[in-house]
This record gives sequence, structure tokens and C-alpha cells, in this order.
Amino acid sequence: MSANTAIRAGILGATGAVGQKFIELLEGHPWFTVSAIAASERSAGKRYSEAANWIGSGAIPKTVAAMTVERCTPDLDCDFVFSGLDSSVAGEVEGAFADAGYPVISNARNHRMAASVPLLIPEVNPEHTALIEKQARAGEGYIVTNPNCSTVGLVCALKPLHDAFGVDKVIVSTMQALSGAGYPGVASLDIEGNVIPYIGGEEDKLVTEPRKLLGRLDGSEIEPAEIVVSAHCNRVSVRDGHMECVSVGLAQKATLAQVAASFRSYCSPVTGMGLPTCPPSLVELLDGDADPQPRRFVERNGGMTVWVGRLRECEVLDFKFVALVHNTVRGAAGGAILNAELLVKQGYLNARKAHIA
Amino acid sequence: MSANTAIRAGILGATGAVGQKFIELLEGHPWFTVSAIAASERSAGKRYSEAANWIGSGAIPKTVAAMTVERCTPDLDCDFVFSGLDSSVAGEVEGAFADAGYPVISNARNHRMAASVPLLIPEVNPEHTALIEKQARAGEGYIVTNPNCSTVGLVCALKPLHDAFGVDKVIVSTMQALSGAGYPGVASLDIEGNVIPYIGGEEDKLVTEPRKLLGRLDGSEIEPAEIVVSAHCNRVSVRDGHMECVSVGLAQKATLAQVAASFRSYCSPVTGMGLPTCPPSLVELLDGDADPQPRRFVERNGGMTVWVGRLRECEVLDFKFVALVHNTVRGAAGGAILNAELLVKQGYLNARKAHIA
Amino acid sequence: MSANTAIRAGILGATGAVGQKFIELLEGHPWFTVSAIAASERSAGKRYSEAANWIGSGAIPKTVAAMTVERCTPDLDCDFVFSGLDSSVAGEVEGAFADAGYPVISNARNHRMAASVPLLIPEVNPEHTALIEKQARAGEGYIVTNPNCSTVGLVCALKPLHDAFGVDKVIVSTMQALSGAGYPGVASLDIEGNVIPYIGGEEDKLVTEPRKLLGRLDGSEIEPAEIVVSAHCNRVSVRDGHMECVSVGLAQKATLAQVAASFRSYCSPVTGMGLPTCPPSLVELLDGDADPQPRRFVERNGGMTVWVGRLRECEVLDFKFVALVHNTVRGAAGGAILNAELLVKQGYLNARKAHIA
Amino acid sequence: MSANTAIRAGILGATGAVGQKFIELLEGHPWFTVSAIAASERSAGKRYSEAANWIGSGAIPKTVAAMTVERCTPDLDCDFVFSGLDSSVAGEVEGAFADAGYPVISNARNHRMAASVPLLIPEVNPEHTALIEKQARAGEGYIVTNPNCSTVGLVCALKPLHDAFGVDKVIVSTMQALSGAGYPGVASLDIEGNVIPYIGGEEDKLVTEPRKLLGRLDGSEIEPAEIVVSAHCNRVSVRDGHMECVSVGLAQKATLAQVAASFRSYCSPVTGMGLPTCPPSLVELLDGDADPQPRRFVERNGGMTVWVGRLRECEVLDFKFVALVHNTVRGAAGGAILNAELLVKQGYLNARKAHIA
Repeated sequence: MSANTAIRAGILGATGAVGQKFIELLEGHPWFTVSAIAASERSAGKRYSEAANWIGSGAIPKTVAAMTVERCTPDLDCDFVFSGLDSSVAGEVEGAFADAGYPVISNARNHRMAASVPLLIPEVNPEHTALIEKQARAGEGYIVTNPNCSTVGLVCALKPLHDAFGVDKVIVSTMQALSGAGYPGVASLDIEGNVIPYIGGEEDKLVTEPRKLLGRLDGSEIEPAEIVVSAHCNRVSVRDGHMECVSVGLAQKATLAQVAASFRSYCSPVTGMGLPTCPPSLVELLDGDADPQPRRFVERNGGMTVWVGRLRECEVLDFKFVALVHNTVRGAAGGAILNAELLVKQGYLNARKAHIA
Repeated sequence: MSANTAIRAGILGATGAVGQKFIELLEGHPWFTVSAIAASERSAGKRYSEAANWIGSGAIPKTVAAMTVERCTPDLDCDFVFSGLDSSVAGEVEGAFADAGYPVISNARNHRMAASVPLLIPEVNPEHTALIEKQARAGEGYIVTNPNCSTVGLVCALKPLHDAFGVDKVIVSTMQALSGAGYPGVASLDIEGNVIPYIGGEEDKLVTEPRKLLGRLDGSEIEPAEIVVSAHCNRVSVRDGHMECVSVGLAQKATLAQVAASFRSYCSPVTGMGLPTCPPSLVELLDGDADPQPRRFVERNGGMTVWVGRLRECEVLDFKFVALVHNTVRGAAGGAILNAELLVKQGYLNARKAHIA
Repeated sequence: MSANTAIRAGILGATGAVGQKFIELLEGHPWFTVSAIAASERSAGKRYSEAANWIGSGAIPKTVAAMTVERCTPDLDCDFVFSGLDSSVAGEVEGAFADAGYPVISNARNHRMAASVPLLIPEVNPEHTALIEKQARAGEGYIVTNPNCSTVGLVCALKPLHDAFGVDKVIVSTMQALSGAGYPGVASLDIEGNVIPYIGGEEDKLVTEPRKLLGRLDGSEIEPAEIVVSAHCNRVSVRDGHMECVSVGLAQKATLAQVAASFRSYCSPVTGMGLPTCPPSLVELLDGDADPQPRRFVERNGGMTVWVGRLRECEVLDFKFVALVHNTVRGAAGGAILNAELLVKQGYLNARKAHIA
Repeated sequence: MSANTAIRAGILGATGAVGQKFIELLEGHPWFTVSAIAASERSAGKRYSEAANWIGSGAIPKTVAAMTVERCTPDLDCDFVFSGLDSSVAGEVEGAFADAGYPVISNARNHRMAASVPLLIPEVNPEHTALIEKQARAGEGYIVTNPNCSTVGLVCALKPLHDAFGVDKVIVSTMQALSGAGYPGVASLDIEGNVIPYIGGEEDKLVTEPRKLLGRLDGSEIEPAEIVVSAHCNRVSVRDGHMECVSVGLAQKATLAQVAASFRSYCSPVTGMGLPTCPPSLVELLDGDADPQPRRFVERNGGMTVWVGRLRECEVLDFKFVALVHNTVRGAAGGAILNAELLVKQGYLNARKAHIA
């Protein structure tokens, strides 16, 4: 794809934490270029560098810093939009964009469980994009979503096991990073030297989303996977990287060696497709006694690999391990960008779909 | 018990983290007075205030600050000893003291699983002290131990359920405090903004110790409880207070209301005995959405109550909740002091057992 | 003062961080009892336990938990009010209460520098309460304020030096705690593993307030002390306790021994008056190489002593040291309560001043 | 310089925190290649990946991971050595290497103040390398040192002012990162939620090293700059990045605008020499109200720029500001690598100096 056919992306919710991450990760992207940024009334009309309280550790990409923030109305000059909108407004706004003919690649939870909306991780269920045909929007508009950040870590870690042995039961206890709560998010007085054993709505997502993600496309329906998940969700004082302690029960008997091999040999259906954001491995099994840890692994492979460690037998279910996912990259903006890349390869997204002639 | 019949305690490992906590908690104790402090060769002969790198947030109790540190040899001027020794030396030293006629109230792991040594939580299994008779030491010496800090939190939380419904299966994921690793313990570069998903030896203790603690005394033997535990142990950047996310399977059917009632109505066998360190309730069930948290609860009730919250049904086993235990108080020094208090009431420990005439 | 003559306090801004600290510290106070609590429209009419997001580590005092929050209008059933109001509303509301005949003991900055309002630290400038006479409010109303939290630490540490040698010049660099920003205050993503070298308005207060506090009462005017202060204010990830690195220039020559002696021998004008919240010493000079530290000292002496350490010669000015002040106790609610106690002893505050007959 | 003339570097103290940083930063270096690694007896003979407790957030560079650790004796197969040795052994070992004909580029403090040893920051005092001629070692051996990490931050920030107006007096208060203490370094129990107002030996280095660094080369002697520095050094819970609050007195009068201009226009004597590790600017003056902060700036420009912010007039001296330096990059390993690059350009270091034929 040459520079003169770059696909122009708009960013909805561009000043928020997820929107900022989209802008950071799209800097220098080989296929996509940011052509429009939109946010709430409060920010509209300002230069991006003034409107955004930039929380990244690097500088704002220069081209975006100088852009003017627009309103989130479906007249943006772009071929498609990434949505980092808050769930309080995402439902309506994303629907309006899709109805107006824009492909909407969303990180919000609002449309995830809708029967016609793909809940997508390219290495896990790329065929689910077929649901797009059911949306029957005006023009070429549609909505595709990525899962909740903690779901992404769990499902990527379960996928090799599920393919090989069938996953029946899961008990997962998470230790989730501050950035998962957005900005300003968690008050420092609440979390400094503390653990908060509750994250609103999070446990439900871990129960429902894996069933859809690991479900089977049957004609134009997803038949949910029969996986029962029980979740304990906790907030800890870590900047980026959700840790998940997982115990699994399998449908078929397996040895520890077989389970380890399933992680090591997993080859995703999108391997070799040349998606720019796709990491060398979806999941990597580590040997270190005390790995993975957020500090040591979260930034490796561009934050797109899910790291698994301490694989061992579980005294109650069958096996147990710990998984680490970069919640704002693989679990949010990076995952959404990878979704868009898959959609390009599948022909659902291209520069010719430009909304504004 | 009047001041002139105070029982004189020696502290083994007095300069270490647990030894310091013994000294802090015994300040002003109505029954016990610190009459001797002992530590390694390196500290012996020094004033305590010089030998100890005091890590507490208050000052060293004045009477102890001026005492001279002795060697850990069984000729200390005291009626019994508390042991906060490191496990690398506790096995041998504690044995030597017990053989020389000293009651040894130990926090170390070395003798916990020995058939003749009580592994004791007064509110849970006070009758296990009968094992003392099996030790057949010279004079009146014996060893009594308290469990590992994370075991204490788990077992105190399970006890009401086990009595009411029988606990079969447990999956527990811990988030453990820095003070559990002693001093200097965890390097700040390892844990600042991080989680370490491994604590050496910890998971095994959570598997084995609850079976003994909740076991039934049958003549002079403990018949272990048939509880299968699977543990995931993690270190987090919290000063004091281990959090434990617990899913349990019960032997008998129970409703959520019945389980909640079992926590609320639990009355321990030592209630009303007047043990000074015994808290008003072994376990307290909280209603708050996001409780317990270390910052909000760990210091309440003198650090001796185990706090339980977020009780709800588990999709995979039967019920789930989160528990919080003060790891250096209820889970270490405070628990050992309470053990000694029980032994006084039971007649195993008194001022007349003074070793040195 | 017997229980039946308890002076009844109202708390303005009772649901905020400072208001909560007032309630926590007044629990069991020998002279004062909380008889009314008031906050914003949003909280008015609710039970306190529902209205307040209680951030303390203990439980809400039971008597207050059950009280109904009222509006901040000058018809509260109390003899005087403590104000923990935010500065956005404190100016007007405090004025209304004072004009209606209530003594107002305020922690807000609004009236601090007014010529007729005492800016008060009892051990430093108790005679400044004479300014009350200038206020000429209707009835017996007046406003007395305590300084900004970082000012309190600095001025308490400077007072012995100023009395003995005269302080000319000060360069102070602070490392301030999270609780100084109130709640929710600093976002965890902003401060986790970070330092923020700026606190809005803080440096100005350190320049102006010490001049008034250490000023001389001349008739009915305060002649400001001729002290030039330069401040660098930083936020660090500490819960409670502002640290201040101070270099001072003195008007008279002094030796290091003389300076140390001035700290050790300082006897405040209110010593022996029996003020319940007055600590044994305003300032305590420490010998430890690396003291004071928030973790080790901030809670000692009930948080009311300012700890000074590392006293040594300064290569540029004359001497340097580090000081620690508990910002929400001595630097806010505790300081205000001590102010009220002084006013009782001086006859400015008593139960007979009850506003409502 | 082509690949086949790569200069082969040995790393002394390769398993320590600074040694690890050398290895991390030399990965892919255009001029230098790591050909030998050496550490203590305990590590000698092991593969590097086994000997080192790697604390970096990325993986160990593969070529080094497989190398065998050697002893620190002057028979290593390399053209020169970087020394990350602890000061307890650096003095002797570095001397032995230099005497055996190796150029030694050291981060240790032992030889810094020796009259014949350059204390070097290339952008500040590149001409000081002339001191090498005084060392008169056998063969082509010599020692060159870089300053203490906190000194680097201070001196880089002062250099533009010193050139323009002369710096007379400095009061600096630091907030230093955990990584400055090496590994394991600071215990988490000592620093979690805390500040430690003391770092052994640190304040002295800030007094003495700037005088040499900013001194004038007079023949073969350094005439120290007449700068009086007073330092307060503190440890805070930040991973990387020392913050320094600086008040300066100048020899010549200057306006705030002139001082700002001196920062913005500073052009170092090595600009344009093409040193690979040299950042675009030695010092960068920031406009943000609350910048620099470690989290936002420490990794920019590869960690080699010193960031200055909040420039304003000082009420006591002349001007004040806050500076941030990456203590393990610019303040240690990165600074030493830049020193080696300068020595290559100046002809003091080259592949032909290979010690072993």
C-alpha cells in the first residue's frame, strides 16, 4: 500500500485516554493516517495540543498537535473512524457514524454483544467479521468492536487451549492497571499502597465476552462457546498491564507437556497476512519462575503479545497460569488498529470508501 | 493476673521484622513482659536500639531499647520464648529451647507440620494444643506454631463456612504485602509500579496448612480436613495486609443468605475467655461494594480481625469473596501472642514455669 | 471543663477531606462535641454516612455517621464552627457565619491575610488573637485562621531560630503529600512513580504567610517579620506528611551547637496551659542520619509535632535542615482545633456564646 | 567508521545495574561492540544470562546473553573497557587495567577528583581530556570518568548560565530515583509511600564535582570554578530520573529573558561532531507549568537531554528552576558512552589500541 493510497482515519473521543493512545500508535502507521479528530463540545474548535491533557510519556505527534478538534458528528473528513468514546455517549454516536456510511472500529462496550456486531480479535476469530453483512447500514457503514481489556488477555491466553482441548471452566482473578480506568480515573489517595477489590461492570464482561469471542460462526449467527467463567477483578497500583491468575478446566484430558505445547505451537489464522500491528506471537509462554511481570514484559513486542507464565497443574480444576496483557495497547487502541488492518485485508475497509468525495 | 505475676517472655530473632513486631505488640501487654531478647551473633552484645534497624512507624519501646541483645542459646532469663527466627535457623534453635524446658511459641514454618506440634489459631482449633502432650520434651518445654500469614487469612475466612457447610474445594489468588517478605525483603526496583506473580514456597503452605488447621483431633492425632486448595500467590506494592480472592466449593448446598449468616453468626470457642489480644470477631463480613481494602481496614480491631467482603455466588464453584488479613499482626506476631494467651488459660504456660530459678 | 459544659462545634464542609479530619480528630475531644455538620447542596439532607465518601482508615465516628447533613447557612445549632470549606466558597460563607455571631475557626485561605484576622499557630503567635477585637462583627462573631499546611511546617521549624537569632532568608524545597490536595485530588496516573514540581498557589503562601505569623503585634496591627522566603513546591507519592528542605540565613551569628540548642530548648508561650491537642513539643530535633521520614514520624505525637533533622551548616546561607509536618493534622484540622482550644483559654470561645438560645 | 573497524569494548561490573545499562545501550551501537564482559568471582565462568539478575524492561541482547562472564583482570579481549564497578573495588581494578594499557571509561567515583583524571561531560568540558597526557601510564592506558548522576543534572543545567553570566552560588534540593542506588538498592519497605532525606556521600559530590567540571584548563591543570554549592539530597519512589530544584546566584546581572535565552541558545563545543549518543540539545527549557516530570520527559531524546522547567526569579538568590536528568543514562552509562565517543573523535581511543594482538 503506497503512501498516496493511505486510508484516512478519524478519531472519536480523541482527547481521552484511549483516543490519545490511538494517536500515539498511529504515528508512522504504514496504512493509516489521522485526518480528523473529534471530541466533546468542550474541546471542539481548539487545537489538539490545547484541548488534550496529554498523558503519554512522549510528545504529541506534531501533525496531530496542530489539528483542530471537531465535534463528533458524522461529517468528518476521513474514510473510517476509530472510536475511543466513553460508553456514556458511544452507543448513539457510533450508531450515527455507521448509519452515515462510516466504518466504525470501536473500543467502547456499547455494541459489543449485539448479534450483528463482530467482537473481534484477529488472531482468535477473524471469520466473525462476516457479521458485518447483517448490519445492513446505509452505504458502507458498519461497527466492529474489540473486547474489554481484561477479556482480551484472558481470551488470547485461552485460545490455544480451547482449540486443542476445549475450555470448560475458568476462574480468573485479575490485578488491573490504573490506565484501564482512563483519566483522571483512580484517585491517588484511593490506590497508593492499596488494592481495590472491585471494578464496576468488569466481572460481567469476563463472563459474557469470552463466550462470543470463542463462539462458532454458524451461517450468520455466533453460537457461543460453552465456557463458564468466574471472575474476581482488582485494581492495583501499576501503570500499564493487567495481570490475570487463571485456573482452567478442560473438556479433554491433557498433560502439562501437551498444554505447554499448545501455547508454543499456536499459529493464528492471520499469521502471514502481513498485518503491520500483528505481533510475532499472539501468546508467548515464559519459563521464568516469576514471570510475566508488568515491569518486565508489558512493553515487549510493542505491547501486542499476551505473556503467559507459571503454567502448572491446578489442584481443583486442571491447569493454572498467569497472563499479562497490555491493557491500553493489545487491550484497547492497538487491538482496534489490528482489527482495522484485518478489515483492510478482508476488503471491508479501504481508501475508496471515503465518505466525503 | 497482677503485675507481680507477669509472665516473662524472651524474643528469639528480636532484631528481625517479626521480632520487632513482637516487641511492638507486647508493649503494655497485661500478662506478658519482655525480659530477654536474642538474635544472631552479629547483634549479640549490642544495645537493642543499636542492633535493630527499627522499621516500625513508632519509637522502640523504651524498656526494650535499652536491653542488651543476647545469643539464641537456651539460657535466657524468661518463662517462655516467642520465636521470630528465620526458617534457616529456627528448626534447630527452637528445638534446643524446647528441649531445655522452654515453651516456644513460634512463627517459623519449620515445625508447623510435625505430628506432635500444634498449628494453632485459638478461634479455630484451640483443642489442638492437646498435641503438646505428645512432645515429651525434658522439663516443661514444647513448641506451638502459628500458620503462615496467607494461610491465616484463608482459614479464618473458611472456618465459619467449614463448620456450617463443609468446605471441599478452594481456589485462592493472593495479593500479598511487602512486610510479608521481612526486611530488607523485596527490592524497590522489583516492585515499584509492578506485581510479582510468585512467592517462594507460599502456594504449598496454602495447600497443606489448612488441612491440618481444620482437621479433627482424634485421640492424639489430627485427622486432616479433606479440603483441596489451589493457590496463586502474588506480591503487590502494599505495606501491610494480604488480600485473598477466594472461590469455594461446599459439601452441602447452601444459599447466599445462609453463607452470609454463617459469617455473621460465627462464635469462636474462645469467645468469652478474656484473651487480651482476641478481637471482638474473628471474621467480619462487610457490605461495602469495594471492601475490604488494606488501606481502610487493615489496622482496625488492632489488626486481629479477618475482613471478608464481596460475598457472592461463584459461576464455577459455589461462592466467592475477598478476604483481608493483617499479615504481620494476625498473620504473625499478634497470632503468636494470642496463642500464648490461650496456652496460659489452658494451663500450659505460666510464670512458675520459669526456666532459671 | 465538665461534660455538661461541652462546647458545641459545627463543621462546615463536613464531607470534604478536611471536614472528615475534623470529625475524626474531634471524636472523644474533652472540650468540644460535634453538634452540627454542614456541606454543599448536593449533600444536604442526607445522613452523613451516605453523603461522605469517607477516606479515613478507621470507621466514621458513630454519633456523626447518623447525623443529617445541613446547608452551610448561619442557622446551625452550635456554639462555633470549624471551616473545612473549599476556598471557592469559604470567603463568603465564613463571612456570613461570623457576621451572624458565630466564631469561625477556619482552615481556608480566603481570610488569612486580612488585617483584622489572626493567622494563628498557638505555640508561635498566640497574642495575635488580639486582632479579633478589630473585626467588629455583629454579636460575638469573628474569624480566626490557620496557615497553609506547608507554611505551618516551615514556620514551626523557624520559630526557635527566629526568636534566638532572627531569620533573614529562607530557601525551601518541599515534597508534599497527596492528602494536601484533598479528594479526589491528584490522579493516580499523574503521580504513580512520578514527581510533580508544581502546586498551584503554594509557593506564594510560603512567601507571604510566614511574614505575618512571625510578625510583631504592634497595638492592633501586625508588623510583618522581615523574612525573605523562596520556595520550590513539589508533589510526591506519599499519603500524609510534607517534607521541607530548608536553608536559612540568620541575622545574628550562631554556631551549629547554638542552633541545635535553640531547637531543643524552645518553650512555647502556651506550654503549661493544658490545651488538649498541644503536643509535648512544637518542634523536635532528631539525631538520626536519615530522619525525619513521613513513614517513621508523621503519626507520632498525634501528628502535632514538627520534626526536624539533618541540621548542618549551609555552604551558601548559614544552616540547613529538613522538616516534616503532618499536613492534615498539624497543618490543617489539628491546628484549627488547637486554635479553638487557645481561644477557649483566652476567653474568646465558650459554651455561653451559643448562637441559638 | 565501518563495521569491520568496530572498537571492541569490555564491560567491568557487567552484572550490576550500571553494567546492565552499558549492555543495553551498546546494543546496535555504530562504533562499539561488546567483546568481553567481566564481573566478580561469583559470576565468573557463568553464561551472562545466568549470572545477571537482569533488571531491564527489555530482553538481554542476544549476543551478550550467550557470552561467558570473565574475571576483572587486565587480560580481557577488547580495545578498552567501560567500568560500572562498585566503588569498593573500582579504585584498584580500574588502576590495574589502565596500567596494563587499557583505556578505562569509568562511571565509578574513585578516580574522579584525581588531578590527572578528566571528569568529563563532552558538551561541557571536552578540552579536559588533555589531562590524559599527565597520567603517564604504561602503553596507551588511561582513566576517564563521568560525574555522579546528580552532578550531571546540575552541571548540564548550570553550564549555559555559567558561560553567560557566571554562577556563584547554588542551593539544590534533589529528589532522586531508586535506580540511582543500584540493585537491590533501596528496600521497598523503606521507600514505599515515603521519602528518605539522605543519600550517603551524595551531597559532597554535588559540592566538589561541579567545581572541577566547570573549571578552566590551565596548561595541564584544572583551575576549579569558584562556585559554592549547598545540597539537600532525597530519595523518592521514582524508578528513573533525578529531579533537582535549583536556586542560583549569578556573578553578573541578568534578566529573566536573558537567562531563558542562554538556555535556548546554548550550543555545545561538540555540536556537529557526529557523536552518535549526543542528543540534539544538552539542555532543553520547557514552558509547561508543571514540567519537567520524570514520567513525561525522562525517556525522551534517548535519556540524554537534561530538561529544565519553571524558570523564574528567586526571592533570595537570583533565579530558580527545576531540572531533570535520566540518572542511569545521561547520569551514568549513556554519559560514559558519550565520553568514549568523544575520545574516539579526539584520537584517544581507536581499534588499533587493541591490547591483545
